[in-house]
Amino acid sequence: MILSLDLNMERLEKQIEFIVEIDKLKHVYRQTVLMDRSRNENDAEHSWHLSMLALLLSEYANEENLNLLQVIKMILIHDLVEIDAGDTFVYDDKGYEDKRAREEAAAERIFRILPEDQSEEIYELWEEFEKRETAEARFASAVDRLQPLLHNYYTKGHAWKKHGITSEMVLDKNKTIAEGSKDLWKFAQKIVHNAVEKGYLEK
Amino acid sequence: MILSLDLNMERLEKQIEFIVEIDKLKHVYRQTVLMDRSRNENDAEHSWHLSMLALLLSEYANEENLNLLQVIKMILIHDLVEIDAGDTFVYDDKGYEDKRAREEAAAERIFRILPEDQSEEIYELWEEFEKRETAEARFASAVDRLQPLLHNYYTKGHAWKKHGITSEMVLDKNKTIAEGSKDLWKFAQKIVHNAVEKGYLEK
Repeated sequence: MILSLDLNMERLEKQIEFIVEIDKLKHVYRQTVLMDRSRNENDAEHSWHLSMLALLLSEYANEENLNLLQVIKMILIHDLVEIDAGDTFVYDDKGYEDKRAREEAAAERIFRILPEDQSEEIYELWEEFEKRETAEARFASAVDRLQPLLHNYYTKGHAWKKHGITSEMVLDKNKTIAEGSKDLWKFAQKIVHNAVEKGYLEK
Repeated sequence: MILSLDLNMERLEKQIEFIVEIDKLKHVYRQTVLMDRSRNENDAEHSWHLSMLALLLSEYANEENLNLLQVIKMILIHDLVEIDAGDTFVYDDKGYEDKRAREEAAAERIFRILPEDQSEEIYELWEEFEKRETAEARFASAVDRLQPLLHNYYTKGHAWKKHGITSEMVLDKNKTIAEGSKDLWKFAQKIVHNAVEKGYLEK
């Protein structure tokens, strides 16, 4: 070593190991295709895109004075467990049966790479996102539902058609958007209505 | 329309148009390859990964009380101009000659899709990042330099070897890391040293 490092290398090495590990999120592919339909979207891109939605659309959150940093932190980490657990399609009811157990095991392995304080912080962010009990989690969850809707609409219903999804299913699975943003839920319903009109989605 | 929307649809439509447009960042490929060397990394994934570095490594910033939300906002938007301007490899001195002009034109087209207040906000974030005059911009820029270093190191010098990069060039191009974080710069130098030792990087 050329340098004598006075920083806590053990701590930094754990952080770097985690940063290297989570590169794998770029290999977790979702059912959603990109806007030009050239390929499926991966979780890392999706997490970036959601963060942009949060940044641009927070004015529509039901609650005022949202802590936007908290929203974005949750979004950035919300899919990390899928590195081990895989992506569960929102309309896959069977996949949802053991989703929590698969994701818990993943969180245990992946988050534990970090120093303990940060491992706890990431776990708490993930728990907050999953439980949807705070204004920030409800809004983060709302944009997580809205973004695939946009992708489906602008790709003429690509994933909807592929999986035989109906407008009733879309409205039922996405109605929690209203808990984060009544305005974005109105907009989402308008998208679903237009999608049916244009033949992108079965009634 | 089934719903009478009392929200400002003109504003929301501009925001959605922008959100759809920036999906193209997922198609802008960088020189860096993923940790498993299976393919090049794209800008959207890179922006997500950098945000995670910022979230986990802010304790190493030179300045205390960093506004982490500001750091992450800059990171999320810093590569949007590359949708039009393309990625300029950090060691491509010729590409850097007209980089600013290409990116200015891109910012003008892309950011202007947004409502004016948000267009201004994104432009100011981008300017702040580029100028590196604030503590937040210096730290955001530091992680933007550190992440490709990690990718190069853990892929045994993939992009370095491909482009005939030497350790002197790496140290010169990345020394601004020290302006954001002296600690991370020490760590980066250690990586460069180890990379030379292991034959990943020419001396």
